[in-house]
Amino acid sequence: MSAVREIAEGAKRASRTLASLTGEQRNEVLAVMAEALEKNATAIYAANKEDVDTASVMLASGEISDSTLERLKLNSTKLEEMARSVRSVAALADPIGRVLDRTQLDDGLILERLSCPLGVLAVIFEARPDAVTQIAALALKSGNAVIMKPGKEVELTAKVLVDVLRCALKECGIAENAISLVFGREAVQELLALGDLVDLVIPRGSRQLVEHIQANTRIPVLGHAEGICHVYVDKAADFEMALKIVDDAKTDYPSACNAAETVLVHEAIAREFLPEMAERLQAKNVRVRGCEKTQAILGIAVANVENWHHEYSDLELAIRVVKDVAEAIDHIHRYGSSHTETIVTNDAEVATRFLNEVDSAGVYHNASTRFADGYRYGFGAEVGISTSKLHARGPVGLEGLTTYKYVLHGKGQVASDYRHGRTFQHKKL
Amino acid sequence: MSAVREIAEGAKRASRTLASLTGEQRNEVLAVMAEALEKNATAIYAANKEDVDTASVMLASGEISDSTLERLKLNSTKLEEMARSVRSVAALADPIGRVLDRTQLDDGLILERLSCPLGVLAVIFEARPDAVTQIAALALKSGNAVIMKPGKEVELTAKVLVDVLRCALKECGIAENAISLVFGREAVQELLALGDLVDLVIPRGSRQLVEHIQANTRIPVLGHAEGICHVYVDKAADFEMALKIVDDAKTDYPSACNAAETVLVHEAIAREFLPEMAERLQAKNVRVRGCEKTQAILGIAVANVENWHHEYSDLELAIRVVKDVAEAIDHIHRYGSSHTETIVTNDAEVATRFLNEVDSAGVYHNASTRFADGYRYGFGAEVGISTSKLHARGPVGLEGLTTYKYVLHGKGQVASDYRHGRTFQHKKL
Repeated sequence: MSAVREIAEGAKRASRTLASLTGEQRNEVLAVMAEALEKNATAIYAANKEDVDTASVMLASGEISDSTLERLKLNSTKLEEMARSVRSVAALADPIGRVLDRTQLDDGLILERLSCPLGVLAVIFEARPDAVTQIAALALKSGNAVIMKPGKEVELTAKVLVDVLRCALKECGIAENAISLVFGREAVQELLALGDLVDLVIPRGSRQLVEHIQANTRIPVLGHAEGICHVYVDKAADFEMALKIVDDAKTDYPSACNAAETVLVHEAIAREFLPEMAERLQAKNVRVRGCEKTQAILGIAVANVENWHHEYSDLELAIRVVKDVAEAIDHIHRYGSSHTETIVTNDAEVATRFLNEVDSAGVYHNASTRFADGYRYGFGAEVGISTSKLHARGPVGLEGLTTYKYVLHGKGQVASDYRHGRTFQHKKL
Repeated sequence: MSAVREIAEGAKRASRTLASLTGEQRNEVLAVMAEALEKNATAIYAANKEDVDTASVMLASGEISDSTLERLKLNSTKLEEMARSVRSVAALADPIGRVLDRTQLDDGLILERLSCPLGVLAVIFEARPDAVTQIAALALKSGNAVIMKPGKEVELTAKVLVDVLRCALKECGIAENAISLVFGREAVQELLALGDLVDLVIPRGSRQLVEHIQANTRIPVLGHAEGICHVYVDKAADFEMALKIVDDAKTDYPSACNAAETVLVHEAIAREFLPEMAERLQAKNVRVRGCEKTQAILGIAVANVENWHHEYSDLELAIRVVKDVAEAIDHIHRYGSSHTETIVTNDAEVATRFLNEVDSAGVYHNASTRFADGYRYGFGAEVGISTSKLHARGPVGLEGLTTYKYVLHGKGQVASDYRHGRTFQHKKL
C-alpha cells in the first residue's frame, strides 16, 4: 500500500470516531489546540526560520515573490492571531447534529434528517502557516478528518504545526490521524485517485491549480477556477449609484475573485454614462478596454477587448455596450464564470428578470459584486467559494463541510404493514 | 456541431426561460400535458403497438424478458395512470423560489438564499413508457430542461409521447426544447462529455448502467449502483421484533435496493436467535448463507458466504456472527454500499453509537430497511436514491433537482463602506 493511501485510510478510520464526538468535545479540542500553539511557539518559530531562510534564497534567484515570503514569515503577532482564529472557530455554531427536518411517518416512527460530517477532506493550499491551523480547525469543528498538502515553501513550518495539533488530539484522546500532512505533487495525484477514501477535495490557490485538480479527479471538488463577475448598468440606472458600484466592484480589491472584470452598459445611456464612468475609473488608474461602440464613445485611449472571458485580477476593466437586459444576460451566460453578477437599475421588472434568469451563484440588484464572501454573508468562516451547482454554491461556510443522513427511529415497524392497510401520517414535526 | 450537442444547447437555452416561469405557469403546462396524453391516445397506442410487435420477436428469440415486454405494453388503464401521475406532480409543493435563508446584512441590504432549477438534466432510463411522462413532469415541475434517453425497446412510444409533450409546451408558449429525446449508446457517451451544458445525469436501471455512467463522466450523477443493506441484531434485541424486521427487510420485495442482503448477529444471542431466524426465513423460501459460526450453529443446510459485498436481490441472505456493535459497524463500512442499515436493540446507548458512526444515507433503529424510499419518507415523488454524500443523499425528492442562488437586494451599497466604519448586522429574518 502506498504511503498516501495508508494516510488516507488512517484519516478515514479517524473520521469514524470524530462523527461520535459532541460539539462540546470538538470545541474542547480546539481550545487545547489553540493553547498548544502558544506553548510551542519556540519550536514553531525555529521551523519557520528554516523555511524563511530557504525561501530567501529562492527570492534572490527570483523563484518566489516578495509577497510569498511575507506570507510565509511567522512572528508573535501572527502566531497569536492563529491561536485566536482557532478559538473563534470553536465559538461558531455547531454545524453537526442539526435537525434539518423531522417527520412523523407514523405513531412511533420518526424520520430525522441530521447534518453530519462528510468524512475525509483533502485540502491543497498555498504557502501560508495560518492556513494550516485554520483548515485543521474548520475540519475538526465540522467533525471531518483532513489531509493537508501545503505549498512547498511552508513544509517545515506545516510539519511542526501539525505535530503540535496532533499532540493536542492525542491529549484529548482523539485519533491523531484526524489531521495529516502530505508533501509534493505526486502525493496530490495519489490523493485525487482515492475516491473510496476522500470525500471532498478543496484546492486553494491559483486558477491553474484549481483547474488541474478539477480535471484530474472524480472526487467532488469545492472551489472556483475563475471569478469573471459582471456589472450590468441598465438604462433605468441611477448614475451616481452605478458609478459607485462599478468603482467598488473594480477597485476595492482588484485581485479578489468577486471583483468585476466586465461592465455591460445599456446602449440608451452609453453616450452619457460611459464618459463619467471612464473619468471616475481613470482617476483610480483603471485601464479600460471596450467593444467598438465603447471605443467610439470614449475615444482613442480605450483598448480593444481581445477576450471577454478573461479575469484581469488587476486595475483593468472590459466594457461592452448592449442592446438590453436580454443581451446582457446572454453575454453573462456566454462569457461569465457563474460566480457573481449585479444589475444596477431602478426598474423593478428588469431587475426581477435579471435575478431570475442569470444562472450564477450570486445575483445582485443595486449592490457591489464584492459582497460575495462568507464573512460578509455572515457565515462566520469561509471554507471557499464554489461555482459548481451541486452541494455548496457561492461562498461556503462550515455547512459546506457537512452532509446529512436520514435517521429513522422505530419501534419494530416494517414496510409490509403499510402495504396491507396501515397508512403513513407524514406529519412534519 | 454534433446533433447531441445541438440538442443540449437547445435544452440549455430553454432552461433559461423555464427559470422565469412561476409555479402556477409550470403547473398549467403540466395540466395541458396530462390532457394532451389523453387526447392523443390513438397515436400513442399505434406507436406502442409497433414497439410491442418488435419486442415480441425479441422475446421469442430470448433477447428480452417477459417482464420487459409487460412493462412496455400500454393500455387505457396505464395511459390514464400516466396522465394522473402528471397531474399529481403538478399538485406537489413548488420546489422553486423557496427562501431557504434570509439575512439582513445591513439596513436595506437583504441577502436571500433561493432554491432554483439546476438547468439541464440528462436521464437515461429503462424501456417504460410511464417513465417518459414521469421524468418530463418532474423536470418541468422543478424548472429544469430534460434530455431523455429511453431504453431501445420503447423508442417509438417515447418519440410519440415526447412529441405530444412538446406540442403542449408550444401551446403554452414555452420553448419545446425543454423536453428532448436522444437515442442510442453513442448519444449517451456524447451527453456524458457535455459538462458545459448538462448539470446532472440521472441513470435509472441496472447496476452495470449506473456504474458505467459514474465511471464515464465528470458531470454529477444522481444514483446508486448498489444497495447492500444490513440488519444488525444486537444482543439486547427483542427477538420477535428482530425476526419481523429481518423477514420484512429480506422478503417484502427482495429485488429492491433497500432490501437487506446481510444480517449481522451478536455472538451472545447467535445460538438462540439464529435457529429461530432460519426457521422463519426458510418458511418463506429464503436460502441462507453464513460465516463459519453461522454454519456451525445452523448446520449443513447453510452455504458458505463467498463475498460479503454482494447484492443478491433475491430470496437469498448472508448471515454473520459478530463480536459486538463495533465489529458490526466495521463490517458495514467494509462491505456495505452506504445505502441503508438498521440496528435492532433495546439498548439506547448501543443504538446511538450505531446511528452516529454508521456512515450511510439511512441509519435506522428498530425499523426495516425497506422504509428507504421517497414516497415512504413523504417526498411525494422520488427522483432516485443517492449513495453519494454531496448534493442529495438517500431517497431524493424534487428538491434533488434544485440548487440555490444567493440573491442580494441592495440600495447602492458597496463593500468598501464596510472596510471604513460601517459594520454588518447579519440579522436572520
